[in-house]
Amino acid sequence: MKRLFLAIAVASLAATSYAHAGSNELIKFRQSGYAFMEWNMHKIQAQVIDHPESFDRAQVVASANVIAAIANSGLGALFAPGTDTGTGWQPTRVKQELFLQTDKVKTLAMDFNHQANQLAVVAVNGDPKAIRAQLGKVAESCKNCHERYRARE
Amino acid sequence: MKRLFLAIAVASLAATSYAHAGSNELIKFRQSGYAFMEWNMHKIQAQVIDHPESFDRAQVVASANVIAAIANSGLGALFAPGTDTGTGWQPTRVKQELFLQTDKVKTLAMDFNHQANQLAVVAVNGDPKAIRAQLGKVAESCKNCHERYRARE
Repeated sequence: MKRLFLAIAVASLAATSYAHAGSNELIKFRQSGYAFMEWNMHKIQAQVIDHPESFDRAQVVASANVIAAIANSGLGALFAPGTDTGTGWQPTRVKQELFLQTDKVKTLAMDFNHQANQLAVVAVNGDPKAIRAQLGKVAESCKNCHERYRARE
Repeated sequence: MKRLFLAIAVASLAATSYAHAGSNELIKFRQSGYAFMEWNMHKIQAQVIDHPESFDRAQVVASANVIAAIANSGLGALFAPGTDTGTGWQPTRVKQELFLQTDKVKTLAMDFNHQANQLAVVAVNGDPKAIRAQLGKVAESCKNCHERYRARE
């Protein structure tokens, strides 16, 4: 739990340090972070679900480390005030509610953080079944936030 | 060195597994990875150069871990054949030479990988001067590739 609170604290600090960055730049960075996690989610999915014969522990660990590191990087700073509208790589799909329901968002963010860090731990153990189960929990934590706070395309 | 060779091996394997992904999707993922590293380079720079009073070891470690994890994620797979032209978030700026000068690219990629992993180690030690010096080496390794293989905007 200590690690989770630290992640939240880091997010707050970084928000302060990066107040000068343009809103569109912050939106671009957050779109980048989520997209890069998506690639790594796909890679793990391929190795434990779609093509289990291709399972390679080192690759899964590398992907899980990316997801955990991005989750731990203080993503909250990329949702600074003023980033509710704007265009990064593309117009943001974030809903206004994300900036209003801070307690709920914090709970979802902490769950995502926890599941992502757990995936990195499970990946090292190298059991495809356990990785598959934990990948599902990470995906669920992504979905919980997307359903509430991201507009459909 | 073992870690570097592993990273290269992972890149090759992933290239095989992801041959089915569309070229534009691979371009989008690589643009995302580099942009997200850029954000984290900026954050470290702010804390050891521009605003040293804001130095926070935990934040620097978190950013360095992102850069190392992305460097170790098999980025080579995102430069698969067919990705020399195309549009991810935006049209790719990669030059044809990157796909032809494979030995040189491998050398530069290994240097970047080494410097990024070293930054993660130095960050944990928490000496701002050493972090600043190592950040410079990472930036140099980025520049070495960009100057040769990325078209100017």
